[in-house]
Amino acid sequence: MSEPMKYILDEKDIPTHWYNIVADLPKPPAAVRHPATGEPCTADDLRPLFPDALIAQEMSAERQIEIPGEVRDILRLWRPAPLYRARRLERALDTPAHIYYKYEGVSPAGSHKPNTAVPQAFYNKAAGVRRLSTETGAGQWGSSLAMACNFFGLECKVFMVKVSYHHKPYRRALMETYGASVTASPSEETAAGRSILARDPECSGSLGIAISEAVEVAAQRDDTKYALGSVLNHVLLHQTVIGLECFKQMEMAGDEPDVIIGCAGGGSNFAGISFPYIGRKLRGGRGPRIVAVEPDACPTLTRGRYAYDYGDTAKLTPLVKMHTLGSSFVPPGFHAGGLRYHGMAPLVSHVLDLGLIEAVSAPQLEVFEAGVRFARAEGIVPAPEASHAVAVALREALRCKEEGRPRVILFNLSGHGHFDMQAYTDYFAGKLKNYAYPEQEIAMALAGLPSIVD
Amino acid sequence: MSEPMKYILDEKDIPTHWYNIVADLPKPPAAVRHPATGEPCTADDLRPLFPDALIAQEMSAERQIEIPGEVRDILRLWRPAPLYRARRLERALDTPAHIYYKYEGVSPAGSHKPNTAVPQAFYNKAAGVRRLSTETGAGQWGSSLAMACNFFGLECKVFMVKVSYHHKPYRRALMETYGASVTASPSEETAAGRSILARDPECSGSLGIAISEAVEVAAQRDDTKYALGSVLNHVLLHQTVIGLECFKQMEMAGDEPDVIIGCAGGGSNFAGISFPYIGRKLRGGRGPRIVAVEPDACPTLTRGRYAYDYGDTAKLTPLVKMHTLGSSFVPPGFHAGGLRYHGMAPLVSHVLDLGLIEAVSAPQLEVFEAGVRFARAEGIVPAPEASHAVAVALREALRCKEEGRPRVILFNLSGHGHFDMQAYTDYFAGKLKNYAYPEQEIAMALAGLPSIVD
Repeated sequence: MSEPMKYILDEKDIPTHWYNIVADLPKPPAAVRHPATGEPCTADDLRPLFPDALIAQEMSAERQIEIPGEVRDILRLWRPAPLYRARRLERALDTPAHIYYKYEGVSPAGSHKPNTAVPQAFYNKAAGVRRLSTETGAGQWGSSLAMACNFFGLECKVFMVKVSYHHKPYRRALMETYGASVTASPSEETAAGRSILARDPECSGSLGIAISEAVEVAAQRDDTKYALGSVLNHVLLHQTVIGLECFKQMEMAGDEPDVIIGCAGGGSNFAGISFPYIGRKLRGGRGPRIVAVEPDACPTLTRGRYAYDYGDTAKLTPLVKMHTLGSSFVPPGFHAGGLRYHGMAPLVSHVLDLGLIEAVSAPQLEVFEAGVRFARAEGIVPAPEASHAVAVALREALRCKEEGRPRVILFNLSGHGHFDMQAYTDYFAGKLKNYAYPEQEIAMALAGLPSIVD
Repeated sequence: MSEPMKYILDEKDIPTHWYNIVADLPKPPAAVRHPATGEPCTADDLRPLFPDALIAQEMSAERQIEIPGEVRDILRLWRPAPLYRARRLERALDTPAHIYYKYEGVSPAGSHKPNTAVPQAFYNKAAGVRRLSTETGAGQWGSSLAMACNFFGLECKVFMVKVSYHHKPYRRALMETYGASVTASPSEETAAGRSILARDPECSGSLGIAISEAVEVAAQRDDTKYALGSVLNHVLLHQTVIGLECFKQMEMAGDEPDVIIGCAGGGSNFAGISFPYIGRKLRGGRGPRIVAVEPDACPTLTRGRYAYDYGDTAKLTPLVKMHTLGSSFVPPGFHAGGLRYHGMAPLVSHVLDLGLIEAVSAPQLEVFEAGVRFARAEGIVPAPEASHAVAVALREALRCKEEGRPRVILFNLSGHGHFDMQAYTDYFAGKLKNYAYPEQEIAMALAGLPSIVD
């Protein structure tokens, strides 16, 4: 027991500043555009949805943005998150690789999402907002925002994708325990919801539809703003505490990552662990390979187009340039709700376009096999989203074994799977399958993209 | 953010020895007796069920028992567990009390149970055992033993109380993820199960019945031993890592507990946090008040009799002297499966009889109100079992406020509630109620106790 398994930091080691990758990019990201006019958005355009402090972060090019004391004071309920050396997994694989994982499942909501929910609630409260509206798929984001709103005395209104609302009652119960109000989407409460239901009363919902409903509610009421759990610049910014902590912890471990792996749905946990490392490389420092992993069933980065698109189904959100499968794309009901978004964070899309990261996709059965293998070696049962990162970490570790090279692998274990056990049950029962879209289906989805060239 | 919220130890601070309270007791505990003869049990009597190393621990009066390196090597996957100062809860209650909680929900299974599952699996493996059988109610114990067996390459056979098997499929999925085989109890696989089913084919099971099945399977097969998640001396011994870590952490915090609180079902998490403190007091050191909390609906310590009784329904286990409601007692289906046992650990019963601890009971609605209050202040959603400790910690903290006295309260938050969200849903829906047994009903249950006087 000479060498440690966990690298633990003190509360005072919680970063004092978030890291903003925009400051270091060789080319600025594309402008966000107004959904009606196609013109670049101003702060005024965003003001119905977000408080000024978050709009400023969204548009900032400052490298360091200070984390308010009130936010750090809550982050320390679970942060710094531990960095593990997966010694038992290494032995089980008989690999010369050193495998590290940052474990974000230690937050009370069980994932990395509270890292941004807390500052979003803080800045809204400080701006006099009374209520936040949001959407949630599997429920990780909704429960995180519910917790954060409760801490700051804000009401929280969550539109939960209907199929999850019925199939994931325990995530819903978690949100309600934190005092949130949860509505199945599409609902009768919004014009967007009613219009969908008029066409298809049995519609089981999608993240894009739920976003439309949440945005509509925020835009209509002065006391209500909107909060998003991924995709936007300020959300990715808040997640950089993950990678910044890893700097210190990898130093404690006396290792330097050769490859960093994160799953990518909207892109926030992936950006959280990787952007500080990309920034260091851009400033002339050491640079590992960076790999984003997405599901075969929603292959935004690997098979989507880098183009302007809407963030939601009803086309209420601003237009952002991103890797997208089209805002009308509804992926199949595979078991990683957090990775079912049709688009990708503009900043993640941009760094892929700049060649700063790689993207791969993984089939569902490999992902679950990796999750079970990880659980049996390390104890922690990963959320299916996080298992995508595990799967590619295993690929890399086995390649190290084949090549006899002791590379250092770091991946983000973004959440635990205690709310996702139905997925494991289905996996063991042989009910899961792989998905692969024919080229034609992707092409059809992309044909509906708006025609803005930049 | 000057004063820390969490007190974190290093892996090297995991205790090297368990603490055995028997060494310090003013009066030895009553002998364990053979179920058929009523004579004191020998090691030979226990040998069909347990390996020699665990029998030795069960009967030991040594104060310190070394924790094998192989066990510490796995415990460090999550240990040392953090000690929290509940600063946000203190503020919410506006109490002068200092409230601390030891958080055992950081284990991969989400509760304190792996602390004993790991050494039990280790000693069985070392003795050449191939398979462990056990019972589980809510599933905390079953999933912990499943994880531990997997780590040591043992098969794991779990008899799960039938009502939980059907209502808690996610705990079952967790056990299966770790590779365990789970059977609904009563089952057709054992004579004990068949006999129950013959009388009542619709029987929804109980912990006592499931124990009978697991013990029967272990007693019949040479390659199979039995493992229990609470009650026995060696199980309580293994949990003392909790309190031993608290010594160091409370010292870091610069506080000394005035009162220590734990929920008590079989007694293991309660003993884990409190026995090291009781031992220190017995050896002439400082001594806090120690409070065991049980549900009104299964009031073993507060309304049961301190007498010899069987551990299971079929009367296959040895007779132990304990606070009991009678082995035929089946509590109502309230929402804290881990606290539904008819008896109590003999050592916990003994220290209550010696006046070294206090026992109180709490009604279900107060318990859930406390759990929600805790979740909204501290973020962590407690398991309903742990909420019993929270409820009495709140009582104490509010008394401190009334009396204007800044006492130091330490309680064990034995697990998180992510697998228990149905209970919270039922609570919010107003479906939960309090239970109070009329005196006559308790008297009837106690009338069936075996007539051994000691």
